[in-house]
Amino acid sequence: MERHSKARAHTNIALIKYWGKRDETLFLPMNSSLSLTLDQFYTETTVELSDSFEKDSFILNDRLQDDSETTKISRFLDLFRQEAGIQTPAKITSQNFVPTAAGLASSASAFAALGAAMNDASGLKMDLATLSTYVRRGSGSATRSVYGGFVEWQMGTNSADSMAVEIDDASWDIGMITVAVNTNKKTVSSRDGMKLTVETSAFYPAWLESTAKDLRLIKEAIYKHDFQQLGEITESNGMKMHGTMLGATPPFSYWEALTVEVLTKIREIRRQGWQCYFTMDAGPNVKILCRYSDAEAIQKLLTTAFPDNPVIISKVGGGVKLI
Amino acid sequence: MERHSKARAHTNIALIKYWGKRDETLFLPMNSSLSLTLDQFYTETTVELSDSFEKDSFILNDRLQDDSETTKISRFLDLFRQEAGIQTPAKITSQNFVPTAAGLASSASAFAALGAAMNDASGLKMDLATLSTYVRRGSGSATRSVYGGFVEWQMGTNSADSMAVEIDDASWDIGMITVAVNTNKKTVSSRDGMKLTVETSAFYPAWLESTAKDLRLIKEAIYKHDFQQLGEITESNGMKMHGTMLGATPPFSYWEALTVEVLTKIREIRRQGWQCYFTMDAGPNVKILCRYSDAEAIQKLLTTAFPDNPVIISKVGGGVKLI
Repeated sequence: MERHSKARAHTNIALIKYWGKRDETLFLPMNSSLSLTLDQFYTETTVELSDSFEKDSFILNDRLQDDSETTKISRFLDLFRQEAGIQTPAKITSQNFVPTAAGLASSASAFAALGAAMNDASGLKMDLATLSTYVRRGSGSATRSVYGGFVEWQMGTNSADSMAVEIDDASWDIGMITVAVNTNKKTVSSRDGMKLTVETSAFYPAWLESTAKDLRLIKEAIYKHDFQQLGEITESNGMKMHGTMLGATPPFSYWEALTVEVLTKIREIRRQGWQCYFTMDAGPNVKILCRYSDAEAIQKLLTTAFPDNPVIISKVGGGVKLI
Repeated sequence: MERHSKARAHTNIALIKYWGKRDETLFLPMNSSLSLTLDQFYTETTVELSDSFEKDSFILNDRLQDDSETTKISRFLDLFRQEAGIQTPAKITSQNFVPTAAGLASSASAFAALGAAMNDASGLKMDLATLSTYVRRGSGSATRSVYGGFVEWQMGTNSADSMAVEIDDASWDIGMITVAVNTNKKTVSSRDGMKLTVETSAFYPAWLESTAKDLRLIKEAIYKHDFQQLGEITESNGMKMHGTMLGATPPFSYWEALTVEVLTKIREIRRQGWQCYFTMDAGPNVKILCRYSDAEAIQKLLTTAFPDNPVIISKVGGGVKLI
């Protein structure tokens, strides 16, 4: 068997956050989430399947990866191979176009691109909704990168229905700006942070309850193209996620000094009349939801305030694509 | 009628926070709290009652206060006058020994000292527990400044039993360090901040439930003189209070950039082996619970790290006293 497929997938930023697993192995989330796919940041991955290969290999950004990284990829590919009834080894060649300087995680676009290429190469050719349940098992947030625009990851009831759903293509003057505060490796991984929060935070049950409500309201805002409501819910849900960490035992926080300065600056820019709302993931970097048509002006204000920090604009991205 | 009394009261720092009123007029709190009275920061207040005065007057730190400030004081004094069946005007002369540079609120010591002097001058001479229910109506946290050491403010069921209770005189090597981050007036007052939190925070019910548990555990720690448990609960309860604000609509925070740096530094000092735990009130300043015998060494580490910020040590203070 000899097959060859290449796919591209974009990263996404959650506006309603995924924060906690109910099943660590199947990557089943504690709550449904909703994201915006970004055009600017993506991964391109080629899957070659060949019986002539001795074993799986994985080349990322032109560097052959070690056994530990490759094993993680192999386990992910096995999900497809099992379903397709094949055992063919794979050579994976992947390129991340998520600049390290942006301080964004690349695992969402990485597993979505790998899954899309493998979906084709393995001959499974599953539809995107089903594909999303597969890529979920590589990285939870990858689930949402299968589609473009606004995407919901429905928590579902089991591994087969915890999947992505297209909500809106976000073609109504939406953009996002990322402000990189610190791009070093985090001291607490997302995985460990969410686990500690689920297990110990006094606020976790309230987080789940209130996030379900935020999700209903943000979908309403998207349906009505109500940008202000979209932004306010985004900002409040993101801060709420960070609040759950202060309710954990021991309490922890991803904020750095500069994070606080960036948040203060964004509030100031908003008071000046620009519609812009911040959100943060499990790290110190800040993402800003704004009108794409305002993005350059807001970028300029931020660059003036933080000349040493990369401030990167993105428009809305599309779903996975074979290329 | 001519009377003259002078009293001193010390400020206190809550280890289990008071954050939210269930009755705005009577200053009845949503939860019981627990504090440590500090020796270093205090207020001395003289109450002169004389029928020869035309009306109440209020001199604070050698400056005659305006009508709006004086009216607030008059209303507070009326509580005592009504109970004593007198209408005698008062001249209040008050001196705050809470250095502005420390970034600490002085309302707790101010109302405790004023209440104690007025309790004597009015002839009421109520016991301290009853007095605490009166000073509560000047400022909630003043309730706890009636006693020294560790003090609980029991939320009670009504205005007569929402009072301070002595827990322990804290004479077992306890100290506190304050790090002033910003001593300017806050953008959101405590009163407004707690109101917004009570009314809108998704985390508020969980805060109340978990704080009741923290209070039980911290009293156990005090009883056992278990400093580590005392510190861990202090740190976790304080951060939890700040987490409730991130769960409010809109979310807000008292943290400044330097706040994050100070918290990071304290964690680092703790990893070096010093027992020290932080707490924060409704503002950017940081208070550190430590062994009094370690305080100078910890102060030195903090002063080296933050040479521009006042770092002030205090030992444990006593309750209100006529002087």
